[in-house]
Amino acid sequence: MTPLETGSRFRHTARIMDTSKFNTAITSTKPDEILLRGYPIEQLMGNVDFGQAVYLLFRGELPSAKVGRLMTAMLVSSIDHGPAAPSVNGARLSASTGAPLNACVAAGILNINRFHGGAIEDCAIAILEITKRAEAESIGLDVATENVLNEYRQRKFRVAGFGHRLHQADPRTPRLFALAEEAGVCGKFIETCKLIEAGLSKQLGKRLPINVDGAIGAVLLELGFETELMNGFFMIARVPGLIAQSHEETTREKKMRKIIPGTHAYDGPAKRDVQTD
Amino acid sequence: MTPLETGSRFRHTARIMDTSKFNTAITSTKPDEILLRGYPIEQLMGNVDFGQAVYLLFRGELPSAKVGRLMTAMLVSSIDHGPAAPSVNGARLSASTGAPLNACVAAGILNINRFHGGAIEDCAIAILEITKRAEAESIGLDVATENVLNEYRQRKFRVAGFGHRLHQADPRTPRLFALAEEAGVCGKFIETCKLIEAGLSKQLGKRLPINVDGAIGAVLLELGFETELMNGFFMIARVPGLIAQSHEETTREKKMRKIIPGTHAYDGPAKRDVQTD
Amino acid sequence: MTPLETGSRFRHTARIMDTSKFNTAITSTKPDEILLRGYPIEQLMGNVDFGQAVYLLFRGELPSAKVGRLMTAMLVSSIDHGPAAPSVNGARLSASTGAPLNACVAAGILNINRFHGGAIEDCAIAILEITKRAEAESIGLDVATENVLNEYRQRKFRVAGFGHRLHQADPRTPRLFALAEEAGVCGKFIETCKLIEAGLSKQLGKRLPINVDGAIGAVLLELGFETELMNGFFMIARVPGLIAQSHEETTREKKMRKIIPGTHAYDGPAKRDVQTD
Amino acid sequence: MTPLETGSRFRHTARIMDTSKFNTAITSTKPDEILLRGYPIEQLMGNVDFGQAVYLLFRGELPSAKVGRLMTAMLVSSIDHGPAAPSVNGARLSASTGAPLNACVAAGILNINRFHGGAIEDCAIAILEITKRAEAESIGLDVATENVLNEYRQRKFRVAGFGHRLHQADPRTPRLFALAEEAGVCGKFIETCKLIEAGLSKQLGKRLPINVDGAIGAVLLELGFETELMNGFFMIARVPGLIAQSHEETTREKKMRKIIPGTHAYDGPAKRDVQTD
Repeated sequence: MTPLETGSRFRHTARIMDTSKFNTAITSTKPDEILLRGYPIEQLMGNVDFGQAVYLLFRGELPSAKVGRLMTAMLVSSIDHGPAAPSVNGARLSASTGAPLNACVAAGILNINRFHGGAIEDCAIAILEITKRAEAESIGLDVATENVLNEYRQRKFRVAGFGHRLHQADPRTPRLFALAEEAGVCGKFIETCKLIEAGLSKQLGKRLPINVDGAIGAVLLELGFETELMNGFFMIARVPGLIAQSHEETTREKKMRKIIPGTHAYDGPAKRDVQTD
Repeated sequence: MTPLETGSRFRHTARIMDTSKFNTAITSTKPDEILLRGYPIEQLMGNVDFGQAVYLLFRGELPSAKVGRLMTAMLVSSIDHGPAAPSVNGARLSASTGAPLNACVAAGILNINRFHGGAIEDCAIAILEITKRAEAESIGLDVATENVLNEYRQRKFRVAGFGHRLHQADPRTPRLFALAEEAGVCGKFIETCKLIEAGLSKQLGKRLPINVDGAIGAVLLELGFETELMNGFFMIARVPGLIAQSHEETTREKKMRKIIPGTHAYDGPAKRDVQTD
Repeated sequence: MTPLETGSRFRHTARIMDTSKFNTAITSTKPDEILLRGYPIEQLMGNVDFGQAVYLLFRGELPSAKVGRLMTAMLVSSIDHGPAAPSVNGARLSASTGAPLNACVAAGILNINRFHGGAIEDCAIAILEITKRAEAESIGLDVATENVLNEYRQRKFRVAGFGHRLHQADPRTPRLFALAEEAGVCGKFIETCKLIEAGLSKQLGKRLPINVDGAIGAVLLELGFETELMNGFFMIARVPGLIAQSHEETTREKKMRKIIPGTHAYDGPAKRDVQTD
Repeated sequence: MTPLETGSRFRHTARIMDTSKFNTAITSTKPDEILLRGYPIEQLMGNVDFGQAVYLLFRGELPSAKVGRLMTAMLVSSIDHGPAAPSVNGARLSASTGAPLNACVAAGILNINRFHGGAIEDCAIAILEITKRAEAESIGLDVATENVLNEYRQRKFRVAGFGHRLHQADPRTPRLFALAEEAGVCGKFIETCKLIEAGLSKQLGKRLPINVDGAIGAVLLELGFETELMNGFFMIARVPGLIAQSHEETTREKKMRKIIPGTHAYDGPAKRDVQTD
């Protein structure tokens, strides 16, 4: 550990407590008036979808309906992935001990960390590094990608957001990129994400396709999101899954059972198509 | 404490652990295929809004677009209410100690309990009791409401979902009922909710208007939701607010400051109208 | 659901917020002075063991050294029981996703509920009911026990704190009762606990021995603890185990591994005796 | 952000899940036998204090009774510091919304982070850096301390564990060092801690005394603890305080009150001396 590394831990420590008033730029509440980033909440209700509302909260402005649709599609893409995900496993485990619903959700949320859900943010950071490098050194994105991947390899770092335990061709990734194109938000970040995929395939001699986390990271960069908020995006998406799975555990399973991840079977409705009109 | 009361605690205790496989009816995952209640996730992405996806997860079927719009409107109605709410206060407090985002969210979620967020479920239970009483005793909803409110009064119980610390005429309530009417889901539960409001006003000699929690409870009953899932609905809605507020605390405020609920001012955008077209 | 049952949910709802000052009787802090229940903390340090300090915090008075030794013995008895306990399973699962130590502990604590750890409180409630019944009806503890167990049986309630998934003769139970006798705290609650054991054996035709949770519940009643604090007692005891197990997961195991409860082997020191002098 | 910094985030990402059995060296459970680090738990019960048991779990061996007494004294020193500490504030806030006890504790634990409770670990890291520097450069601890403090100053890093919001002469620090001396564990880490105190006073022109966190960090280093476990030590110590304070909130205060940190008064027993014999 170098001084830089240990020292960096001390930056903000132990400031004197401060009792002054504080400001918020998110929500204004007065008797009979609630404004979200300035918009009366009753005007938002029924007129924006949830993706637009989340964008408004995080970025400060209402996006177009197309961008809202893209935001919502990303939320839907991560709403659930079955009982084996560590966040769901944790929520079911809590449910199994008799925990109330909010404790199950909290336990699940506490499992969304670097190694689960964190790939969105980590992939975005890698993409950002490449695009900044390209700009700083006036080189192409392709060269910058190659250089950064080589450096990572030497340092034995892995880029998050590529490859999946289960999926070879994750159906969510192409769908998400198609919706991004429809919304007109395809730029250098998505391009770089695809360059990383190609570079990793070359480097490793096998295809390591962009997974849904990597794709979301790239799209959120296109939409101007700060990387610090990206794990939060995954939490918003996954909470409905945590609740539905905890509730299923409580209502269908014996208490205190031994929960083995991956031993479940699916007994829900057979495959069926979404009817759009 | 009577035997019934203490004894009721022992119903499920200490079953033998069971190692058998289990089933889930929510999500099916196979290589390159993810089905939510049977629907391919890439078909849901871009074609349903988040409210529809949540309804699908909780109720098992895709609702109409109108019902989806109603679901989303309810989620938007509760997405944030400023820093004084105990869930947000808790999330900001964690952020102030240097907690990562998911710990802030978990701390906030742990504050969604009977006295904060719980009014949705509690109001729905009261409404259900009245509608069941009316049916069982073949009396009108108005008489059943009066009878149940009188009983509650005698027992010194309060009905949750009416009155608000800040709002006299919460703008979210009429908007929500209007959207419910548009979606064609106005039935006996919303009617009963309004009868309770009238009954409480008579009983107390002052208006105790339906607040947004009470209204959501009534609408979720109309949509067939189990009361056990209603607090979960509030969690889904509020997580974006918890994240935006935690992030604001981290980026705008001093560490370890003394956080006094209600001392904040709003310095965001001035009031503006949603442009719909 | 009867009115009583649903109504009981509304007892405390939605009180007006109150900004008045509040009192604490636990700890006084002034510049250079910290008093716990009146005792200067530097006098407690080095002079009391942790069990005494916990008793002081919860009951308001310093117990004798003997009672302190008994308190500490109970804490030690529950400090860890290996990776299969749901609280430890949850903590390890979080650790496996890259959670910081406090998130692992929080996730573990959230799994201490009615069906795990809750037997201390539930057993104590059953014991209390029997002793109150004996007093109210002027009958012997043996008759009261038989009556209550028969009622429970009819209602299909189970008494918590008896029987164990793994142990037939839990070595902690007799040790704890022996220490309680040494400390002079053997009274009607421990007696009743033993009567329940006998009654259950008769009722079920097989031995269902008092487990460590049941024994702790009985001893805490003898020490005057409120049942509401008893689950808390288990949390205090188990936190060191949660930490040691989370740390072991982080330092010995691969990230994001599939954690199957009960698949572990022990590779620590061989059995050895405590040297006392 | 340099490649090193961002890249370091990817070290362990997304390993393939692994279903193999795992080992634990902490606790062995067999029918009717529980061994902690090899010791039968019923032998530990009544023969070791809680500090010894924690040491055994974390370090693998039973310490002497003197070291156990020192461990316990450290746990007692941090058991509570009143309602204003962010962990307690968070626990009380949860209690105020109607949370069960374990959710209050979890919420409190989630507030133990770098800026609250984290000073133990951060101070230990700084001490370690100085002692390693002294060894590596064959210079005295005093010179190494001066060099490191100068570097920190240039980089605007602050050393944690010195100074206190409330106390100028924290009574816990000298008591702890006296007990460490009694236990024979006063070495270079405590010496370095005192050198930092002197160095900071010189640097800042005012006394910034070692606080209890700094002192605990130094003593835990003397006892051979890994820095990664030190925040955990604080959690163990504080859980009883979180429980007692949450319980007091629930039993003495109105629901959903506005909790303002620092507005409490103390109405417990007057100052009194610990009777030792």
